[in-house]
Amino acid sequence: MPIGKFVEYGEASDEVRAVYDDIMETRKLRWIADFWKVLAQDPATLKRTWESMKQTMGPGAIDPVAKELIFVAVSVANGCEYCINSHMAGARAKGMTDEMLAELIAVVGMANETNALVTAWQVEVDERLRRAAQGGK
Amino acid sequence: MPIGKFVEYGEASDEVRAVYDDIMETRKLRWIADFWKVLAQDPATLKRTWESMKQTMGPGAIDPVAKELIFVAVSVANGCEYCINSHMAGARAKGMTDEMLAELIAVVGMANETNALVTAWQVEVDERLRRAAQGGK
Amino acid sequence: MPIGKFVEYGEASDEVRAVYDDIMETRKLRWIADFWKVLAQDPATLKRTWESMKQTMGPGAIDPVAKELIFVAVSVANGCEYCINSHMAGARAKGMTDEMLAELIAVVGMANETNALVTAWQVEVDERLRRAAQGGK
Amino acid sequence: MPIGKFVEYGEASDEVRAVYDDIMETRKLRWIADFWKVLAQDPATLKRTWESMKQTMGPGAIDPVAKELIFVAVSVANGCEYCINSHMAGARAKGMTDEMLAELIAVVGMANETNALVTAWQVEVDERLRRAAQGGK
Amino acid sequence: MPIGKFVEYGEASDEVRAVYDDIMETRKLRWIADFWKVLAQDPATLKRTWESMKQTMGPGAIDPVAKELIFVAVSVANGCEYCINSHMAGARAKGMTDEMLAELIAVVGMANETNALVTAWQVEVDERLRRAAQGGK
Amino acid sequence: MPIGKFVEYGEASDEVRAVYDDIMETRKLRWIADFWKVLAQDPATLKRTWESMKQTMGPGAIDPVAKELIFVAVSVANGCEYCINSHMAGARAKGMTDEMLAELIAVVGMANETNALVTAWQVEVDERLRRAAQGGK
Repeated sequence: MPIGKFVEYGEASDEVRAVYDDIMETRKLRWIADFWKVLAQDPATLKRTWESMKQTMGPGAIDPVAKELIFVAVSVANGCEYCINSHMAGARAKGMTDEMLAELIAVVGMANETNALVTAWQVEVDERLRRAAQGGK
Repeated sequence: MPIGKFVEYGEASDEVRAVYDDIMETRKLRWIADFWKVLAQDPATLKRTWESMKQTMGPGAIDPVAKELIFVAVSVANGCEYCINSHMAGARAKGMTDEMLAELIAVVGMANETNALVTAWQVEVDERLRRAAQGGK
Repeated sequence: MPIGKFVEYGEASDEVRAVYDDIMETRKLRWIADFWKVLAQDPATLKRTWESMKQTMGPGAIDPVAKELIFVAVSVANGCEYCINSHMAGARAKGMTDEMLAELIAVVGMANETNALVTAWQVEVDERLRRAAQGGK
Repeated sequence: MPIGKFVEYGEASDEVRAVYDDIMETRKLRWIADFWKVLAQDPATLKRTWESMKQTMGPGAIDPVAKELIFVAVSVANGCEYCINSHMAGARAKGMTDEMLAELIAVVGMANETNALVTAWQVEVDERLRRAAQGGK
Repeated sequence: MPIGKFVEYGEASDEVRAVYDDIMETRKLRWIADFWKVLAQDPATLKRTWESMKQTMGPGAIDPVAKELIFVAVSVANGCEYCINSHMAGARAKGMTDEMLAELIAVVGMANETNALVTAWQVEVDERLRRAAQGGK
Repeated sequence: MPIGKFVEYGEASDEVRAVYDDIMETRKLRWIADFWKVLAQDPATLKRTWESMKQTMGPGAIDPVAKELIFVAVSVANGCEYCINSHMAGARAKGMTDEMLAELIAVVGMANETNALVTAWQVEVDERLRRAAQGGK
């Protein structure tokens, strides 16, 4: 049960309603996810979060499906079930197949395993690796 | 400083050397990263980890660059500096640009912020979202 | 469903009952939260945990409401739903308003986002910052 | 070593410089922390992050020092050393004493311990607690 | 609700069935846990994960019960409820008593507390400690 | 660099010195680890933490080496380098071999991987598993 209450469209202030309208138009949806309805109890955070989300998840150098996969990966690492489902749904809407989902989860699993191995063995970043991460610059 | 010692190619057992050879051939590299050299103190884990890595990060339904971006995202969430650099280097080698890196980091940041917002407000997965995450099935 | 069973007041040992009495007296409550009842299966940990909690959350240099907010913030970062609710309740009892709660969550969200940005960009602590963190000493 | 390079004031674009000016004016500082200089490689994220930070950390219902303490608490839970130091410095600037710092750390330690106890014993949120967290509404 | 569907024994491919048979034979069980049934949607990950699990959790230098306790400890730190229960069950099957469980949870609690204290106070690994961790080598 | 300063034995208050003496006697050591010296800036937390540590890590139903391994496992999951080294040293002192260390790390790696797989696939605890975790009670 979320803290507080859902701010439904019909009872929303103009400020909140403008955000809701932009969400539905941008995402080609006719409904507002519960996340936004709960967040709308704090209109400044609603507006700021939506604008940041629109900017970061919108068109750019990374493929939109890949952005959703990255979002799911972080949500798994953080154990946020709502976020996992929300962005799996986003990824599906943008073209993620079952095969891609299975691969995504396998990569996330491996990343968590090798992160732990590196941390436990205390492997340090060496110069060669750091230069490569910098793009050879 | 890592725990134990690096197992260098010249002193490696046949079992370890076979893994090293496969790593270099698969990745078109002439050197072995410290992670593998440290892991080689435990040859069973070296072999198993490399084979899993090769399988999960290899060709499939998800674009290879996207897989590296996902790996970096998880490594950031886990705070594993070596892993971040190692897979940023992997992503660069497969074509990641500076623009893609900046977008990746922005998405990871947003994911961590909204994960926290969801957890704090205790938003629950509703049926509509769950069905969408299942692919409408 | 918790592991094991609840140790109810009526069936508790004298050692456990003494802790329960102290909890109710300190917190001006007439009931014992489930956390303590489950922990009471391990009386040494119950006693130690309660005494530590009483000491750290009691009067001091930091305002009691702020201590509860800090506790909620950590519980969000760790994804512990019971702990979030338990200390939101504590914060409410000590005067937290809805406005404060919304601000708390916004700050926690921002902290998680910028933590990820710092980790991904690998920003290092510089001397000026470290001296400031040390209080200029 | 951070990824990429620091964008110094003298070489910054007008957009970045406007953010830098606002940071220095808002915080009454004559220098820009490395976090912002690194972030400035991605001007959209710099601007968005600063505006969000200004909004969430600015005047409101929660005391400004308490906001910094909350920020430190989350940064400890996430293991972000730069962030810990950065917001300890912020807390010092706003009046945090050594006694407050020691109490903060003690509370964060207790929160992490009891979060783990709750998770391991699998204590569930009961109705009484949930109503109290909702403010009795 | 898990993503996708359970792959039941009767409908499994030969490859999946071979893994199921090996799990039941190795663990002396007549049923397959849901984890494996869900994972079986991705047969390569099922096979790889089971083989890794069998190798790491099998006989070796560390007592099998202790390995399960370690697994539970990590699962608590990661907040994975299924994993906590799954490996508590494994530990019970191998001889874990209620006293051991209570001690395990107490140790995990302390570890999380002192981890946070170390991170917040920013205590660094000194040479004496590092040598001792290396086994005096 | 730790926050604040080390409280050396020679300058410690009687309260702090009593804790230091107990640490050295209990652990059969002639020196005090930096963790305790830094913590001693906050004598109440020093005393409380040491007494909790002595109680939880002391003789009991779980083998002392296994307790140290559990402590290392949690520290890896939390990415606390000092804690990893400190308790690896403790484990060595109590008899951990290189083989045990390698197995520990392999188990911790697997636990992190399967935790992520479970979280991503959203596998739920079923009744059979829950009863087994409860000890069949």
